[in-house]
Amino acid sequence: MSQATLTGQVQGVLDGRWRTIRQQARTELQAGRFGPPREPLGMEAHRSRVSDQMSLLAATGHPGRGFPVEMGGSGDIGASVTAFEMLGHGDLSLLVKAGVQWGLFGGAVANLGTERHHPLVPRIISLDLPGCFAMTETGHGSDVQSLRTIATLDARTDELVIHTPTPDARKDYIGNAARDARMAAVFAQLVTGAGGHGVHCVLVPIRDEQGRPVPGVTITDCGAKAGLNGVDNGRLAFDQVRVPRTNLLGRYGDIDERGVYSSPIENETRRFFTMLGTLVRGRVSVAGGAGAATRTALALAVSYGNRRRQFTAPGSPDEVLLLDYRAHQRKLLPALATTYAVTLAHNDLVSSMHDVQSDPAAPEIAQRRLETRAAGLKVLATAHATATIQVCREACGGAGYLAANRLAALRADTDVFTTFEGDNTVLLQLVAKSLLTGYREAFGGLDNVGMVRFGARQLADALLERTAARTLLARLRDGTGRDDDLPLTSPDRQLRMFADREQHLLEGLVRRLRPAAAPDADAFAILNAAQDHLEATAVAHVDRVTLESFLSAVAGCTDDAARTLLGRVCALHALSTIERHRAWYLEHDRLTPARSKLVTELVNHLCQELRPQAQTLVDAFGIPAEWLWTEMLAGG
Amino acid sequence: MSQATLTGQVQGVLDGRWRTIRQQARTELQAGRFGPPREPLGMEAHRSRVSDQMSLLAATGHPGRGFPVEMGGSGDIGASVTAFEMLGHGDLSLLVKAGVQWGLFGGAVANLGTERHHPLVPRIISLDLPGCFAMTETGHGSDVQSLRTIATLDARTDELVIHTPTPDARKDYIGNAARDARMAAVFAQLVTGAGGHGVHCVLVPIRDEQGRPVPGVTITDCGAKAGLNGVDNGRLAFDQVRVPRTNLLGRYGDIDERGVYSSPIENETRRFFTMLGTLVRGRVSVAGGAGAATRTALALAVSYGNRRRQFTAPGSPDEVLLLDYRAHQRKLLPALATTYAVTLAHNDLVSSMHDVQSDPAAPEIAQRRLETRAAGLKVLATAHATATIQVCREACGGAGYLAANRLAALRADTDVFTTFEGDNTVLLQLVAKSLLTGYREAFGGLDNVGMVRFGARQLADALLERTAARTLLARLRDGTGRDDDLPLTSPDRQLRMFADREQHLLEGLVRRLRPAAAPDADAFAILNAAQDHLEATAVAHVDRVTLESFLSAVAGCTDDAARTLLGRVCALHALSTIERHRAWYLEHDRLTPARSKLVTELVNHLCQELRPQAQTLVDAFGIPAEWLWTEMLAGG
Repeated sequence: MSQATLTGQVQGVLDGRWRTIRQQARTELQAGRFGPPREPLGMEAHRSRVSDQMSLLAATGHPGRGFPVEMGGSGDIGASVTAFEMLGHGDLSLLVKAGVQWGLFGGAVANLGTERHHPLVPRIISLDLPGCFAMTETGHGSDVQSLRTIATLDARTDELVIHTPTPDARKDYIGNAARDARMAAVFAQLVTGAGGHGVHCVLVPIRDEQGRPVPGVTITDCGAKAGLNGVDNGRLAFDQVRVPRTNLLGRYGDIDERGVYSSPIENETRRFFTMLGTLVRGRVSVAGGAGAATRTALALAVSYGNRRRQFTAPGSPDEVLLLDYRAHQRKLLPALATTYAVTLAHNDLVSSMHDVQSDPAAPEIAQRRLETRAAGLKVLATAHATATIQVCREACGGAGYLAANRLAALRADTDVFTTFEGDNTVLLQLVAKSLLTGYREAFGGLDNVGMVRFGARQLADALLERTAARTLLARLRDGTGRDDDLPLTSPDRQLRMFADREQHLLEGLVRRLRPAAAPDADAFAILNAAQDHLEATAVAHVDRVTLESFLSAVAGCTDDAARTLLGRVCALHALSTIERHRAWYLEHDRLTPARSKLVTELVNHLCQELRPQAQTLVDAFGIPAEWLWTEMLAGG
Repeated sequence: MSQATLTGQVQGVLDGRWRTIRQQARTELQAGRFGPPREPLGMEAHRSRVSDQMSLLAATGHPGRGFPVEMGGSGDIGASVTAFEMLGHGDLSLLVKAGVQWGLFGGAVANLGTERHHPLVPRIISLDLPGCFAMTETGHGSDVQSLRTIATLDARTDELVIHTPTPDARKDYIGNAARDARMAAVFAQLVTGAGGHGVHCVLVPIRDEQGRPVPGVTITDCGAKAGLNGVDNGRLAFDQVRVPRTNLLGRYGDIDERGVYSSPIENETRRFFTMLGTLVRGRVSVAGGAGAATRTALALAVSYGNRRRQFTAPGSPDEVLLLDYRAHQRKLLPALATTYAVTLAHNDLVSSMHDVQSDPAAPEIAQRRLETRAAGLKVLATAHATATIQVCREACGGAGYLAANRLAALRADTDVFTTFEGDNTVLLQLVAKSLLTGYREAFGGLDNVGMVRFGARQLADALLERTAARTLLARLRDGTGRDDDLPLTSPDRQLRMFADREQHLLEGLVRRLRPAAAPDADAFAILNAAQDHLEATAVAHVDRVTLESFLSAVAGCTDDAARTLLGRVCALHALSTIERHRAWYLEHDRLTPARSKLVTELVNHLCQELRPQAQTLVDAFGIPAEWLWTEMLAGG
């Protein structure tokens, strides 16, 4: 088989279920129109460029894909996030700005609003109504349930009064707010005559048709950031701003014309997290954007390592290609293998999300599982992006530091991905907690108290009830540990080692948190002391789920050569992950010292074996050449 | 003792031998004049600002400290690099631009030139003669011995003809070249009628008094970079540019008026590395700048973690300070402890350099050791800076991403430190090789051939001859491994564990490279396959030397409270380093699984114990409050 055919076969696997959309995006999203600026622009020029690109993007029809047909969209969720993801090969400012307009703002109106709000959706799709998503406040970012902005019903005038009571209740870091948005989806504590009902979302006009702030709304600019300077992040303060009562996005909690509040979900915390859950697409999209940026960076660094030479080999007149050095292979190839894993796991996540969100009858548990999976993969994809793009920069030396070679912007733009749409540290705790219970609502929300007061017996039961855990246990029963008879190179052995780590960490966590359930226990101290254990458990879980996606993609590949190649890449991913955690396997008697050293040898061996295919593996990302234009790869 | 007194005592230890200079810099280098811009400037405005700051800096008298009295300086090398290091709390563009002018360009003229060039030094100090250091070429950065620019003697006219023979021989990434330099210290292959003599340095005017490029010199701009945009990096191409023969900086190889070349060092490679060795100050200064930037970032992040609250603790109305979370302590406190280690090891390095370079009778071996130590610490300090400033950014969440909070610039500016003044990957190989032989010249330079052909027997002998190694062996003889009777908390035990790792890796390396000495061996393949082993050995060596510096600073501290506190910080540094390498200790039977887990427990315990002192520990960096002004710490 020719190299081009092999590349095509591998690309087919990576492109996945929405390959047609990817192919369409490859031709439609030309670098000239949607690509990153060739050189850094000042902030204002960059914002203006991205705004113009937003209009071009609106004209392509892609933004409508994510909205239901009855609201004027085309109702293909998977296609929507896949097209969005492809923007991640270009200017990430455009990706984020598009995510704010169509994902967060549009998503809030579509998913939290009712039929009285849905007529706005076509105007949001067409960009006739630019908006923003005003959730984060200066004082509360991760703990959004404690937001302080207030929306008080004035029953006499049938209005909601939006107010910023303290400086730290100011809406902060709001994308699209500093320059373009005319309306904000404002999250605020809803108060009626009957009392407070927790955080809800209200549509508040913030600028008039001429782009001037409306009375009572103070808009300031967050100014320059480390990256993403094409996005106009701003701050919003409200001084008793009045909007019609009906501006409340009332799907999960509404106020009728008599001023009476009602909700289909009684528990306030559960209601809030149900609302948040509908916005899972944002988190999935961040993971997708991070993945695309990582693939771009690797395509640049591997191509550079394949043409840049330094130092002469003994007995040879030629200088050695960087990628022929083991140290260089070690930098790039395990990261490349894990990028394959993240890409394939992301494809599966998008597919699940599409199925769950396209099915009105999908059970709530499916939605909760989707949220856990999205949170976990968001952490993995964004942390991997930060680490890998950095390694790519370093692997390109000084060339990697020049703006003309793009790695600088990729690095700076993606840096905040580990923070926004859920801080990674907070998300890992959330994933671990959801693993502990299986059902988030069983302990009344995400707060630490509920979590640790939740009885240990219930924890253990919930654990056993989970289908995934049962499968694991069945698998594990037939042997793990150092005496495993399968070789380390066996995918089954690798998966068992991943599953075993997850299971053992999870069981240890249950035991460790049990004392917190005692009535006189210092629950915070116990939970806080276990934070690193929670993180390790969550990471082990995400690792296992990700490896399963990779293995299943390999198994499903019908082309022999592509399957063999992907199998090796999967082995490099699995073994380099085991190598990174080998201290754990040694400490828990899962690897002997000799086998642990063997893992490192196998990783080195796989690097050497895959080195000749490194270019094929980045070519199979299918990134159009014009999107990869850089000074360091031009000519030569 | 009051907290302020304790802070002062700890600061005294960190300030070290040149504390007076540090104190002077604290008052002289006011943030208003020398600090970073409050908001990002466009590239041209930033360059212009830094140029103006260079003039202000020249007026302070600091730049003269590093030059000998007989050349118009004040001849205090330690004071010079310490004052320079203090710039690392401000705008790193100024630090780098100053380093180019006075460290690299001035250093080349002073150290590679002869009395015919030294009259230029006062003009360099005063900035009357702005210059640049033109070593790196497009095609050769790490392998500078293979540079392709040519300096050919034209004996008829008594001139050297400087020429760029191919596009990749273009001088590239040259700081100060794009805008300000009027003269370049150009590294080129020197050719006379008698043949080639290897790389030498020649002074070449590149701009006239009006700042226009001189005929034959083409200057282009490298354009925007990820950071350091106040530094004007440029490219230089020479088209048969003629300069007087006497422009050759001839200390290590000169041409007389008859056109005859002579050198005090016969071996060409040794001569070149001797020249490079005189420039060690640049590498030391980069490590110092990285250290100062790291301390700045930690001072910001710890202060933020000490005032930012998120989520409510069960049973308490108050939200929890970020720094009270274990996950947050884990992010910042081990990094803080290692920052202490790096700072103290750097102080020792500066002190050694001062002593060696101030002593005309210092033996060559002392210079070689200094170079190895400088290379190793440059790697540790810059890699630690990249990782730690990133963690600080993440620990400050979205606030860390705003330009107004400085972490963005610190991160972007220091990113290239792992690459310039010696790529870290290349330097680690160099450190390992110098450990293998003790004497670099014994294998004729740094090339791979010489290195691996160098007989195994000689390697082993050289190893035993080294004083440091002998001390180690003596120490190690009385017990290491899992049966060590000292507790893990004992500094002696910790140091032995560091030394044992270094020693074992080094001995393994000798055995592993032995086959390469066989005449028919594929020396490149053997050395290449061992690159990760070389890196690990070098890291272990640097870790050990760094811990020794820390332990000796603790031992030398005369204040009880400060000594106790520093002892704990040192233990956290040592144990978190052991924790990071615990897989190695487990694989080599130096830790039982139970003890390995205990290491993690001890690290957690020390984090908790040091948490109340975290602010004291960053206050003791002695960074003036106005240098730490950021939006996120203002008010509140």
